Formats: sequence, structure tokens, C-alpha cells
Amino acid sequence: MKTRLTERLGIAHPVIQAPMAFAAGGALAKAVSKAGALGMIGGGYGDAAWIEEQFAVASGGRIGCGFITWALAEKPELLDQAIELGAAAIFLSFGDPAPFAEKVRLADVPLICQIQTLRDARRAIEVGADVIVAQGAEAGGHGETRGTMALVPEIADEIARAGSAAVLCAAGGIADGRGLAASLMLGADGVVVGTRFWAAAEALAHPKIVAAALSADGDATLRTRVVDIVREIKWSERYSGRVLSNAFIQRWHGHENQLVRGIKVEAASWVRAQESGDTTIAAPFVGEAIGLVHDAPGAEDIVYSIVTSSRKLLACFDNVEA
Amino acid sequence: MKTRLTERLGIAHPVIQAPMAFAAGGALAKAVSKAGALGMIGGGYGDAAWIEEQFAVASGGRIGCGFITWALAEKPELLDQAIELGAAAIFLSFGDPAPFAEKVRLADVPLICQIQTLRDARRAIEVGADVIVAQGAEAGGHGETRGTMALVPEIADEIARAGSAAVLCAAGGIADGRGLAASLMLGADGVVVGTRFWAAAEALAHPKIVAAALSADGDATLRTRVVDIVREIKWSERYSGRVLSNAFIQRWHGHENQLVRGIKVEAASWVRAQESGDTTIAAPFVGEAIGLVHDAPGAEDIVYSIVTSSRKLLACFDNVEA
Repeated sequence: MKTRLTERLGIAHPVIQAPMAFAAGGALAKAVSKAGALGMIGGGYGDAAWIEEQFAVASGGRIGCGFITWALAEKPELLDQAIELGAAAIFLSFGDPAPFAEKVRLADVPLICQIQTLRDARRAIEVGADVIVAQGAEAGGHGETRGTMALVPEIADEIARAGSAAVLCAAGGIADGRGLAASLMLGADGVVVGTRFWAAAEALAHPKIVAAALSADGDATLRTRVVDIVREIKWSERYSGRVLSNAFIQRWHGHENQLVRGIKVEAASWVRAQESGDTTIAAPFVGEAIGLVHDAPGAEDIVYSIVTSSRKLLACFDNVEA
Repeated sequence: MKTRLTERLGIAHPVIQAPMAFAAGGALAKAVSKAGALGMIGGGYGDAAWIEEQFAVASGGRIGCGFITWALAEKPELLDQAIELGAAAIFLSFGDPAPFAEKVRLADVPLICQIQTLRDARRAIEVGADVIVAQGAEAGGHGETRGTMALVPEIADEIARAGSAAVLCAAGGIADGRGLAASLMLGADGVVVGTRFWAAAEALAHPKIVAAALSADGDATLRTRVVDIVREIKWSERYSGRVLSNAFIQRWHGHENQLVRGIKVEAASWVRAQESGDTTIAAPFVGEAIGLVHDAPGAEDIVYSIVTSSRKLLACFDNVEA
């Protein structure tokens, strides 16, 4: 399934697996790439040993690496590491990509910049991003407030107006062939998919937490700062994280100051819950598309299913009455 | 352009104009219907004289009427009025449609229920809605938090699972042919369009306020309770209203308690600003799709443009490589 994205990145299908911190390791990335999409290691907050380990797991696969931009700014050497390890693309989100763009270009590696607003899209065009990912608020994990449906065509218009050669992807709320086909209609050349791959057999999410999420519907997620507070990670006020709600989130969302006061106890309890898969406390970063995800197949099956069903949809409308 | 929606409602194009309170009068509704879509009078909070007047303005047109469901519950006689005036459809949003469904069915008028969550979609199926509108948070005016992109396919799945004959529309973030084509891919049979028609020549918005909005981008809107507070309208906590931000909104958003304390002065100033078109105070209910709206043509041109460009897009993908 060819688009400008597949040509730009040298892949078979216009699907990029989101570089989800902690969940997207080498096994997931490798399986996604094997199926003809682009797999990504979630470099996240930046742990050199973990990144090296995951590239080793993915050995033989052509995969990319993603970073949280503001965290990369604190450990810029990780970008050199990812490039040396042979990253097929560098994916940056949540912060100014300018300090890293030149190095990525000189290494002849495609630069993917994920943005959440028109203003940041202009910045991504300015720094010469090869791929711009317009991420809507439906997405799991960190993000802002604009929805995918109007953001994608507005960024498509901006890329055209700027005369930029950047290729556009949609992200947020996309878990199946309907989302891919819709994104192509909105003016994107491909999609970034998170939540659907978070529940893939190869992802590093806890099986108990995945099992609970598979029976959740899309009404059950919300954007909150609670998870960042309990993990004591200092995110900018601009961003919140979309999680699947549970007793812990309901207890603390809207009572963040209290959580800060009880942080020692709650932080320890959070870590234990992550390890044991206690779904009353450990709230996973998943998007509203969790309501479209009901099983946990291998990543290759997910890629084939997205591509096959989007092809059918697009063919269905071949003979739309004109 | 035929879909299940056009068949169900007896219209030529799968586009419904949102029944925007105060902005959607008879002239707009009539022009939209004349172009082959379904025009709607925005019955809003319910003013019998205004509704009668607008139906008179639309005389000769086949148009529907929308209500804010919780407000209609306080003046249920307005439903009889709309039916007697010949409403071609009744559109209900924001509240339980059950008390009104039977009357609408007995009158043989299509019932359109707009929902914002899966839970409310189940209720709409239960009461036998003919059309279910899945409204994402991108939409202007009142709404909730779920985004259009994942909500629409999830509701499509729910309608299928329930074995319901309801037809699905997407709303929120849709202003052009890209949004219509994308919505069809997501599993909808048509769309509800607000913001694009709010800026139509026939709409009742203040020309100065429209002119200012035409140069705004999609980053410039937000969901807030400020406008309901200053108008002293008691909306449920579930809903907020998306508006175009301005100095007034920036002053009070996040400081709602202070606004309540100064309500007499601020309410008077709000009313004056609405009348004079003072864009520093009067913040219009528009959605994120305002970033796709750059002109104020007649409603017929808007309908033709949406339909023509979506046809082109769908045709473009006729020969997608399979």
C-alpha cells in the first residue's frame, strides 16, 4: 500500500508503530517492521543500557527510535547512540526539535516530529522534519487537547502553504483500517498507531494490565497528571497523559495536591502495582481507541489487519455515486 | 451522493447542518436544505415565538428542528410546536431522549439523537433513534471530552452489535470534504457540520464576530464553562462549551469563582458585547474546525463544496494499490 510516507521511509505500508516508553521494546519493533510497517523502540526518558538492549533484541530488523524531546535535551548523547545503533528513523515529541535536527540530517536518518498544535507544526516545518505526526488528544499517553479530526487537515493545509516537502501522519484514535483510511482522506499519508500495538503480544506491558484493558471501552480513559505526579516526573503543564481510569486515578484525579503530600507511600505502592500488575492502581497509558481493541494478537497480524481492512474500505467507495 | 443517511432522511447529500442555538435560524436552514442537505433550526433553550418566526422564514423548505434535551424537558410543549410546524426531523442532544422518543415516533418524524459517549449511544439505541450522531470534543459549543476519530468507529461497532437499524453520523471537527470522506471511512453514513455553517452568510452570528473568527486557527479554541456562567445558564458539570478564546475568556477561564462573584457587571457587559460585536468579550461557540474556515460564503456553496471535494477524494483512492 504505497503513499508518500512509504516512499519516504522505504517501508511497505503507511503505518508507524508509536515509540511508547516502556512498552515498545525491540521485540515489538522488530515484528512490526517485519510486517512491512515501521517499528520503533520507545527511548522515552532515556536509559542508555535499556536502549542498547532493545536494539540487540531487534537485531536484524530495520527499526526506528523515539525520544521524549525534553528528556533527550537532558541526555543528548542518547541521540548519537541511537544513530550509531542504526536507527532507521528518529521520532521526537514533546519539546523543541531544533537542537537535534541538524545531527539527524547529517546522519542521513529521517526525522519524524510529532506535534499537537499548529504552532508546533510550523516549528517542525522550520527545522526540516521529514515526517510530521499530527497527534490528537484521543491518543494514549502524553499529549494536548486538540482532536485528530480537525488537526490533521489543518496541518496538511499548513504544509502545503509553507511549500514544505514534509510528509504528514495522523495519530490519536487510530487502531484499525477505518482509522488508516480516514486519515488518508483527511490529507495524511499514513498513521502512527499506539494503543493497538500496546496490546500486541510482543509489547512489554504487563499481561494482567493488558487483559483488563481489553474489556474496557473508550469512555474509560481520561487525561490526567496523576501518573506523572506519582512517578515524580516533571512534565510541562502543557501536557497531560491519557490513561485507563481505575480506583487509583479516581482517588487522586482532581486531588493532585493531596497526592503530592502523600507521595512517598503512593509512589512505592505505584511501583509495586506496576510489578505485580495490580490493575486497581497501575493505570496504563492507552488512548480512546482502547474501545476498538479486544484482543492481543502478534504485531504482524495487527499490521496486516489494518492494511487489509483499509484497502477494502477504500475499494468499497470506488463506485461512490458521483 | 447516496448513503443510508440520505435514504433514511430523504435528502440528496449526507450532510446535516447542526442546529446551533441562536446562529441557526430559518434562513440558514432553508438554504442548506435547498442545496440537498438537511437544514436545522436551532431551538436551543426554547423560545416558542423565535422558533415560530424561524419556521416562517424557512417557509417552503423541508427543515428539521433541534433542542437541548434538558431544556426541552422544562418546556416539553415546544416539541409539539416543532412537529406541528412540520419539522422534517427532531434533533436532541444533551440529556435523556427517552421522554420525547415516543411522541416523535408517533408523529412519524425521524429522531436524531446526538451523543458524546458509548454509554449514551446505548441509550439512543434503546429509545429507537433513527439517526445517532457521535459528537467528538472538537465540536464547537457544548460537548464532552471524547474525540471524533475513535468515538465514531466504536459507536458503529455498538450499533452493529446491538442489531440496531440506527444510521450513524459523525460530528466534531468536520468542515469540508475531507471530513465527510473520513467519516464515511470511520463507519458513519454522514456528517453533522456546525462551525462551517456558523460562518455561512445566512447564519445569525454577528458579522464582526464572524470576521474575527475567519482569521483564527484551530489552536485558538478551548472548552470552558465561562460562557455558561456569564449567561447564567445552569449546564450540567458533564458538559463544557468550546469557544474561540479572547481577552474575556483568558481573564476568567480558571477563575470561574471570581466571575460568579462579579456576575452582575460581567453579565451586562457580555450582553452589550454580543449586541455590538465586541470580539474582546463576546466569544463565539466554534469548534477546532474554525482553522479550516477562511471565508463566509452562502450555505448552498458550502454544501456543494463539501460534497464535491469528498467525491473527488473518494475517487482518488479508487485505484489504491491493493
